[in-house]
Amino acid sequence: MEMFSDGVIAILITIMVLELKVPAGDHLSDLHRVWPVLGSYVLSFVIIGIYWNNHHHMLRATDRINGAVLWANLHLLFWLSLFPFGTAWMGENHFARTPTAVYGVVLLAAAIAYYVLQTLILRALGPGSALERAIGSDLKGKLSPVIYIAGILLTFVNHWLGLAAYVVVALMWLIPDRRIEPALLVTADGRRG
Amino acid sequence: MEMFSDGVIAILITIMVLELKVPAGDHLSDLHRVWPVLGSYVLSFVIIGIYWNNHHHMLRATDRINGAVLWANLHLLFWLSLFPFGTAWMGENHFARTPTAVYGVVLLAAAIAYYVLQTLILRALGPGSALERAIGSDLKGKLSPVIYIAGILLTFVNHWLGLAAYVVVALMWLIPDRRIEPALLVTADGRRG
Amino acid sequence: MEMFSDGVIAILITIMVLELKVPAGDHLSDLHRVWPVLGSYVLSFVIIGIYWNNHHHMLRATDRINGAVLWANLHLLFWLSLFPFGTAWMGENHFARTPTAVYGVVLLAAAIAYYVLQTLILRALGPGSALERAIGSDLKGKLSPVIYIAGILLTFVNHWLGLAAYVVVALMWLIPDRRIEPALLVTADGRRG
Amino acid sequence: MEMFSDGVIAILITIMVLELKVPAGDHLSDLHRVWPVLGSYVLSFVIIGIYWNNHHHMLRATDRINGAVLWANLHLLFWLSLFPFGTAWMGENHFARTPTAVYGVVLLAAAIAYYVLQTLILRALGPGSALERAIGSDLKGKLSPVIYIAGILLTFVNHWLGLAAYVVVALMWLIPDRRIEPALLVTADGRRG
Repeated sequence: MEMFSDGVIAILITIMVLELKVPAGDHLSDLHRVWPVLGSYVLSFVIIGIYWNNHHHMLRATDRINGAVLWANLHLLFWLSLFPFGTAWMGENHFARTPTAVYGVVLLAAAIAYYVLQTLILRALGPGSALERAIGSDLKGKLSPVIYIAGILLTFVNHWLGLAAYVVVALMWLIPDRRIEPALLVTADGRRG
Repeated sequence: MEMFSDGVIAILITIMVLELKVPAGDHLSDLHRVWPVLGSYVLSFVIIGIYWNNHHHMLRATDRINGAVLWANLHLLFWLSLFPFGTAWMGENHFARTPTAVYGVVLLAAAIAYYVLQTLILRALGPGSALERAIGSDLKGKLSPVIYIAGILLTFVNHWLGLAAYVVVALMWLIPDRRIEPALLVTADGRRG
Repeated sequence: MEMFSDGVIAILITIMVLELKVPAGDHLSDLHRVWPVLGSYVLSFVIIGIYWNNHHHMLRATDRINGAVLWANLHLLFWLSLFPFGTAWMGENHFARTPTAVYGVVLLAAAIAYYVLQTLILRALGPGSALERAIGSDLKGKLSPVIYIAGILLTFVNHWLGLAAYVVVALMWLIPDRRIEPALLVTADGRRG
Repeated sequence: MEMFSDGVIAILITIMVLELKVPAGDHLSDLHRVWPVLGSYVLSFVIIGIYWNNHHHMLRATDRINGAVLWANLHLLFWLSLFPFGTAWMGENHFARTPTAVYGVVLLAAAIAYYVLQTLILRALGPGSALERAIGSDLKGKLSPVIYIAGILLTFVNHWLGLAAYVVVALMWLIPDRRIEPALLVTADGRRG
């Protein structure tokens, strides 16, 4: 499951670039139409990078899966697979209100799908697992959907505010993506639940 | 063979999303044309997810292959590779009769190809294998092609009835996709044929 | 190198299907334009399947590589990567003379690249290797380029004759794709060079 | 991380070929428009092949990573993911000045990203590592960005001169891509820092 998921995520992060359509002319000004798509591509690249990293560490720390975990994982991959679509629609329309809100809905759905997957894995592992200690109170996991919802609503005030909310979530995750690793290293060295 | 197949299936399930063409406008109403394609994409995503899961477990339980098994596997991958085409044609034409029937033919061919592959693997493993016991009477494997044929014929009555038949097969498989695993766990704990 | 090559081949065999353009209409007659592309897709699928199989077995039997082998491998992957282009051009033009001849040139180049790779691997392994015994006189490896050249020339007489030559090579390889495996099994059981 | 990176690079090197648009006509003259795109594709194929090779060996020699290394790796993959875009834009415009200069900027950014990744890995491994000895003074790693900058500036004199500079860097790397391997073999045989 880990390899299949890694494969799907590697393909997703790469085929997004196919939406970067080659401009017709050969002047620097012809690149102007590309910038917004490139900008939304960079944001999605970072977000999928964060998902790959967290997801990979979570599955590494998971030695027991069941049917529910498996389908929760495919459910997450489904929402991630809509990133190329959402990214391109938002970028090609220069971050207009509706595409930016729809992009936020995809982000929100993926965040919820991740949370569901994590909850099912923790349940499959049982209480006292190393993963459970590593995740802890999971403040970020709980904050992310809230900020996404705020971002979606903010697009109706100003679409740049909505986009800013999505960027805030990405930045929030960029810093502590090592949160699982150290905790697991500690337990690997010493006691194990 | 297992890794190559997993790779092909991961790529298939992902490139299907490339058929979700980004709409020209930036209004919510511009998404209306996308819904049917998204709907057929969800159905194909679930069906390929089921294939990946069953196929992965079957190959895991297979420690002996030969040339016939190898080509039966490629034969299955060939029909699965037609899913993006069938999915997009059906979705873009709002589940019209002919594309829905053709989609059913692809589903039927894949189901038969899976059955052939399974039969050849069981023959290569010889009688009394753990996989044989896990598969048992294979009621679903035998029912699926029958329901698909019924679905293809039903599209000529009403295309939604045909689609409903395909959905029934997907739901039927969603429930017991763990059927191989538990049986194998039992044999791993205790006796092995 | 084995995994990277398997990955590239898995992607190639899958993205070829993206050239199967979804027809505009929803009638069975709209599929008529798809048939030749589907036909050329089937041929390329089988040929790439043969390459994957032979290549995979060859690398499995290779425990020593060097820079020359590595670049010979990338050289083979380069020619294989032109299959989607050649396949689509031939199919969309209903096997017209020039695209069919160009397709043959790609087949020929891939066959030569495979032969070069095999020769460099045998040289790296040194004389008396299991792979050397398994390959033997390599009649097919030597015949294939000859038949491809004949096929390319035959397209100028009749393009169907050229296509027939390519099909003959594919059929020739379909039968003994297990030639390496049994020989290796023998050496694994008993003596090793 | 190694497998994910290999997967992304395998996908990149393959999807670049999707930019080789199938010509409308079926005459040899219809291929004329394809030649420049094919030419730029060959160059990018070789460059990505070099990256894959060096990157793969570097990660193999890396037994310790941290968050900074992980994101430096994704940063490199990001710039590599812009190769299909840059390659197609340059090829479709017959190596015109601006697209050729922009292609050079992507090459430069990838070279810098590789250097940053290498520096962070060396720091994570600590002084005296086998990788450090294998890389040595890293003349090529330091020369590449300089030649790329020269190439970008040269496109404003003559775009073929700029292209020639990029080809020089590729040729420079083609020869010693085994530089890490032998040094590691030596240390594996004997002393290890």
